[in-house]
Amino acid sequence: MAQAVAAPPRPVEAPTQTPKQLGYTMPGEFEKHVACWMGWPEGADTPYLWREDGGPAREAYANIATAISQFEPLIMFANPGQAAANAREAFKKRDANNVSVVEVPGGINDGWLRDWGPTCVRRKNPETGESEVAGVHWNYDCYGAPEKKKLGMPTMMPDWNKDFEAGRFVLNNAGLQIFEAPLACEGGSIHSDGEGTLVVTEETILHPSRNPHLSREEKEHILKEYLGLDKIIWLWRGMAGDDLVVNGHVDNMATFIRPGVIALSWSDDVNDPQHEISARNLEILENTTDAKGRKLEVIKLHCPPPMFRTFKEAEGFPAGHVDKGYSPCYAQERLSGSYINHYIANGGAVIPQFGGTATDTDKLAIETLQKAYGSERKVVGVASREVLLNAGNIHCITQQHVAP
Amino acid sequence: MAQAVAAPPRPVEAPTQTPKQLGYTMPGEFEKHVACWMGWPEGADTPYLWREDGGPAREAYANIATAISQFEPLIMFANPGQAAANAREAFKKRDANNVSVVEVPGGINDGWLRDWGPTCVRRKNPETGESEVAGVHWNYDCYGAPEKKKLGMPTMMPDWNKDFEAGRFVLNNAGLQIFEAPLACEGGSIHSDGEGTLVVTEETILHPSRNPHLSREEKEHILKEYLGLDKIIWLWRGMAGDDLVVNGHVDNMATFIRPGVIALSWSDDVNDPQHEISARNLEILENTTDAKGRKLEVIKLHCPPPMFRTFKEAEGFPAGHVDKGYSPCYAQERLSGSYINHYIANGGAVIPQFGGTATDTDKLAIETLQKAYGSERKVVGVASREVLLNAGNIHCITQQHVAP
Repeated sequence: MAQAVAAPPRPVEAPTQTPKQLGYTMPGEFEKHVACWMGWPEGADTPYLWREDGGPAREAYANIATAISQFEPLIMFANPGQAAANAREAFKKRDANNVSVVEVPGGINDGWLRDWGPTCVRRKNPETGESEVAGVHWNYDCYGAPEKKKLGMPTMMPDWNKDFEAGRFVLNNAGLQIFEAPLACEGGSIHSDGEGTLVVTEETILHPSRNPHLSREEKEHILKEYLGLDKIIWLWRGMAGDDLVVNGHVDNMATFIRPGVIALSWSDDVNDPQHEISARNLEILENTTDAKGRKLEVIKLHCPPPMFRTFKEAEGFPAGHVDKGYSPCYAQERLSGSYINHYIANGGAVIPQFGGTATDTDKLAIETLQKAYGSERKVVGVASREVLLNAGNIHCITQQHVAP
Repeated sequence: MAQAVAAPPRPVEAPTQTPKQLGYTMPGEFEKHVACWMGWPEGADTPYLWREDGGPAREAYANIATAISQFEPLIMFANPGQAAANAREAFKKRDANNVSVVEVPGGINDGWLRDWGPTCVRRKNPETGESEVAGVHWNYDCYGAPEKKKLGMPTMMPDWNKDFEAGRFVLNNAGLQIFEAPLACEGGSIHSDGEGTLVVTEETILHPSRNPHLSREEKEHILKEYLGLDKIIWLWRGMAGDDLVVNGHVDNMATFIRPGVIALSWSDDVNDPQHEISARNLEILENTTDAKGRKLEVIKLHCPPPMFRTFKEAEGFPAGHVDKGYSPCYAQERLSGSYINHYIANGGAVIPQFGGTATDTDKLAIETLQKAYGSERKVVGVASREVLLNAGNIHCITQQHVAP
């Protein structure tokens, strides 16, 4: 198993131009990676954020990381000391030799790295002609937590300072130039086709908790400048059950399979609001073109049947965690189950599996995505209900380190 | 069609003993009725409480009332003037000749008569030997609204003074003695077997909004004294999705078919919290005896698959109704669909039907209940999703006027 590596010094001075002005663009997740980044859910906040002190969550994270590491190197960022030791032990137990555990000196609040972590952009250097990668570091505010506190809305966590700083550490650790983006944004709220098109949802980007001082046009401008884009496709909403804390991230609703082809979470159940959401998003996709002027091919990816947090599961969350500022995890709440929320790796894709009443859709999702990705990727499933209990899934806890 | 009747004066002075001390008991709903009482949803509160100004709700109420009136006389209590005229017109259109529209001089807030209305009790007069009926008038507080306001919980309605008074009017109109019960209680939170047993849920009766000054034992004592009971069976919770505003009324979860036989809303879907709720309630029922010392026969009545308020439906509710103190009716919320929430009439039973994905369970419910009730009752279904959109169903909007 690879050993932890020390963070190199921050490579260069902060740039004065935007990534777009410098010729960068955000590649698609389906493009080549150096590695996959994740965060290990073990720290001061973990016992409030996850049930049973985070034990089942760490098992799920370890299984997901191990599955991804069969396709590409995986860097697991962890709190120093015992947490990192526990992470190393988990991967040793799994013979996961392609996983490196990296201690974050300042620590992390928790393991939602997709959302607090940076976003890679890439360009061909106009002088050297070489491909180079940099990172956009968002003004991450934990899903609009400051505004939510004012509005009386539930927040994911009361504190996110460590996660915010850890986003920079991840880029420093990889030796990547940092662009500080003047936008509160989570990695889960954006998906790029790598050719100038971004897909987002209005539900997230226009949520009253997100950058309320900016207009839709201003938000669109910043996204385009910092991700090097020409066009943003605005879907309506994210998955049913994803509205309360995360506010409808696109990475649970739609993902680019390749340029020109997008998968959309789908339900045929006309009694389920999910059908309305998917149908309205489909209409948007069918009536738009991407940055290259292409009509999009839309692949319907059937979501699991409605699932809910059980009483037994809810009882595992600590009493009073909501009063302390952590996201409510009540019994009976709908879980925003979706197979869209998967990770595309080099030559592979790692897909959520839920079991139980979702057994049929679990199988169908693997079949549908295997057909969509073709023989160039091996699609594998990993049980991830534990992550879903906290409103996320495989994509929410991973981030690609894009290859030059 | 029968005409409105004027309310006779209140018949006698208030009694000084409790119904139990006077030998009264609450009959089972399956016993003989004089009539069925309902309230017409058309008044100052209606446009905030129901979508599209209450029009679809009035259609549903009229259809339900018409179905019941084939089995027994139906009295529809209505706001005076135009509302009552509209009700009469609705029944004229349906040729519903067994329906009487009665104007409530002081008006009503809305049509949840099961909950704001009185509960009939009956005894054999120890002097005359004749059977006589009286009414218990609860200290109705709109599902614990005063406490809920203090606790920051959503309330069904901001005002319920008219409904509270209308409960007395219903009894005066029927010429029935009134017992004023010192307990905030809704008719939907109690079901009697007519032989001394009451079934309730802890979720409702022990909810922090309900009579917080009383202990469990004190509540049990008052229920026993005012309904003439010997035993209370405490179920755990009501239906999934019924927790927010109504707080798990038993009349959506379990109902006596006859003494010794109880129907329980059931789900086999182990991924659905409804399964946990039903299974725990089943365990309670299987490990208890009724007031007569009998083990109960439990009939599992399969509930519809999970259903949710659609965006289209939610958009029909007026903007700002929650801020005005009316119950939230958001898109995507789970609807507490159940076939238990039906009305037992003389020689009949009127059962909710939901259509859509519930088509199979709709049919199964009618079959199951027809078999349970036997040839003495004709079981008929009526579409009632519109009522369910506001967290209720057929039982919640009806009340039996028990026959002597």
